[in-house]
Amino acid sequence: MPHDENLTADRPTFVSHLECAMTGERYEADRLHGLSRVGRPLLVRYDLAGVRGALARETLAARPADLWKYRELLPVRHTRNIVSLGESATPIVPLDKEPGNVWVKDEGRLPTGSFKARGLVMAIAMAKELGVTTIAMPTNGNAGAAAAAYAARAGIEAVIFCPDDTPEINVREIAAQGARVYRVNGLIDDCGKIVGAGKEARGWFDLSTLKEPYRIEGKKTMGLELAEQFGWELPDAIFYPTGGGTGLIGMWKAFDEMEALGWIGSRRPRMYAVQAEGCAPIVRAFETGERHATRWEGAHTVAAGIRVPQAVGDFLILDAVRASGGKALAVSDAALIAAADDSARRDGLLLCPEGGATLAAYRDALATGLVDAEEKVVLFNCATGLKYPLADASRWLDRHAPVDWAEL
Amino acid sequence: MPHDENLTADRPTFVSHLECAMTGERYEADRLHGLSRVGRPLLVRYDLAGVRGALARETLAARPADLWKYRELLPVRHTRNIVSLGESATPIVPLDKEPGNVWVKDEGRLPTGSFKARGLVMAIAMAKELGVTTIAMPTNGNAGAAAAAYAARAGIEAVIFCPDDTPEINVREIAAQGARVYRVNGLIDDCGKIVGAGKEARGWFDLSTLKEPYRIEGKKTMGLELAEQFGWELPDAIFYPTGGGTGLIGMWKAFDEMEALGWIGSRRPRMYAVQAEGCAPIVRAFETGERHATRWEGAHTVAAGIRVPQAVGDFLILDAVRASGGKALAVSDAALIAAADDSARRDGLLLCPEGGATLAAYRDALATGLVDAEEKVVLFNCATGLKYPLADASRWLDRHAPVDWAEL
Repeated sequence: MPHDENLTADRPTFVSHLECAMTGERYEADRLHGLSRVGRPLLVRYDLAGVRGALARETLAARPADLWKYRELLPVRHTRNIVSLGESATPIVPLDKEPGNVWVKDEGRLPTGSFKARGLVMAIAMAKELGVTTIAMPTNGNAGAAAAAYAARAGIEAVIFCPDDTPEINVREIAAQGARVYRVNGLIDDCGKIVGAGKEARGWFDLSTLKEPYRIEGKKTMGLELAEQFGWELPDAIFYPTGGGTGLIGMWKAFDEMEALGWIGSRRPRMYAVQAEGCAPIVRAFETGERHATRWEGAHTVAAGIRVPQAVGDFLILDAVRASGGKALAVSDAALIAAADDSARRDGLLLCPEGGATLAAYRDALATGLVDAEEKVVLFNCATGLKYPLADASRWLDRHAPVDWAEL
Repeated sequence: MPHDENLTADRPTFVSHLECAMTGERYEADRLHGLSRVGRPLLVRYDLAGVRGALARETLAARPADLWKYRELLPVRHTRNIVSLGESATPIVPLDKEPGNVWVKDEGRLPTGSFKARGLVMAIAMAKELGVTTIAMPTNGNAGAAAAAYAARAGIEAVIFCPDDTPEINVREIAAQGARVYRVNGLIDDCGKIVGAGKEARGWFDLSTLKEPYRIEGKKTMGLELAEQFGWELPDAIFYPTGGGTGLIGMWKAFDEMEALGWIGSRRPRMYAVQAEGCAPIVRAFETGERHATRWEGAHTVAAGIRVPQAVGDFLILDAVRASGGKALAVSDAALIAAADDSARRDGLLLCPEGGATLAAYRDALATGLVDAEEKVVLFNCATGLKYPLADASRWLDRHAPVDWAEL
């Protein structure tokens, strides 16, 4: 009784090799890899002609709606190595009360409540396939939670490091899901340094953003899913909360692969990378025309997920944003909080702070004419709003006292 | 660009009438109804011969995977009255580390993080269709959150009453989603009395469990979805956390409707109604052979969702459990907490306490031979585990101090 054939059916796979995103140097598939020789991310390449012969859009439509339906465009060779907590396609919810044509892709509906599940399910499946026994990674919270959950399922040990002010719920869910979790007196890149050192000292496999090649393959399913949900016509603009930027890079990669397969044309959405004013290295590099971003000192924002002072894939983010005709945009904490409040109160959709940031940036973009009210726009809500503090606005009632109906 | 035709396509509807679940007395469709004349729930009846002609299992398979795909078996007449936050089909996740063949249907993946979304999306859509402007309801938390979110989307005012010790996160999400929420010095049935009185005093429409006819229609989609996911062969046993019991009653109704449509045969899963030892009115009634359950005094359990001292649909729950060859089972708080801990740590799946209760009951059932290890069993996890307290198990690391690798 396989209720999801995506998880149990053997399907052909098409990875041909990996290549350095900076130099194009080739690396062999089916071996453990970290960064390239020049210290940059590796991208997975496929025999796309082979995929084209094996997989049609109509075939996809008939498969169960989860990310494993895209198996021919994913790196896992052996079905037995698939780990899954039910990575169902995330819904696209219109914000009816906002002006324009704007939808939220609600990634908070994935396992462990965030889009980190997409990247980590793939990274852990590949770690399993390639014989890894212990993974380590730095996290601002949600990535660690996803890593812990999938590692538990795969029988892989997980060691997680997060900044000491990481939301309490994230630290607790990581621990509950069987990982060893450490709070570190520093930011996420400080945590990354500990992982880097432990790699040698303890033989950990480093699952940091873009430091292994497979999280991006999982994240690219956001682009595949979006195209399929929009009837193979991509929206006009995408607002993406950008910390490490894996999802933005992954979607951009997915668009190219889909064009090569003849599934979509050459038109692309304008990609808007959204950051917080208190941590906006990509915005600064975009505005000064740099291809690499320098570290943002003194990073601070309530949107912990995008508090990433330095991203190893900075040039990939900036290349995609520029090629798309988009921009990198910063919003204030006040604006992202207000946007999230409005979405919950008026549209019934609880956004995480990073999701609120995309709504705030969209509002700015509409006001300044970057986006037209006729255009189709998708915002990414990267995690469930339930993981974040909400204000108390309850009143009290004593059932033994007479109810004053006029007051209710 | 309708990305989900279920929400936009007009489809034939087949409601013929409503009837009292106790006496069978008929009530007219398309009018506002509360309880029947004898104070019992009303059930929605369909022209099933009509549905049979209009909807085949193959048609269903081709529709987007959310609960609105079952439109011909739902009460909403006019497509414009559909409210939606993306009610995607919930995944079924195997618990690989447990003995036997056991899956969790993870209802925490629905909008607002609980299965309450299924019932409330339907109740609010029907409230909109029938011209309601203000709804009120008692809640232990999750139902209020779902009601608030959908009411916000529908432009309907919501007034919510919850026990004063309702989980903080529930109270806050209800308020954030635009409802007026009151903490009441009492239990859920005390809250229900306030709603009952306010109905007259303030003209509220009462959305209490089973006191309006449509929440059960939304909840029955759990049964429809389960049948479809299991290839139209229902599992051998279902463990369902039982407070008001709408879902259990709804699934049982769905099974009968599907049999009438020729979608499934006459075989039924054994239904196990799971309660907490500190609040087990259905278990007591089951064991003493009663058809109605008396109020459970001094109700207490950490599983707030099943702390329901008295259920208006008690006889419907007990009838279904008995007809199925199942049982009503009680578990201790210690057992449900341990089960939820194990699921997170070993299978990477964070259950809510009520979901943990079903796992604890399943373990007991396997140990006592109620369930066989060869049988296919489904547990219902009714809400995301993220809404509930998790123990802290993090350690600390000072990045300025040398890392003691031996300790990590």
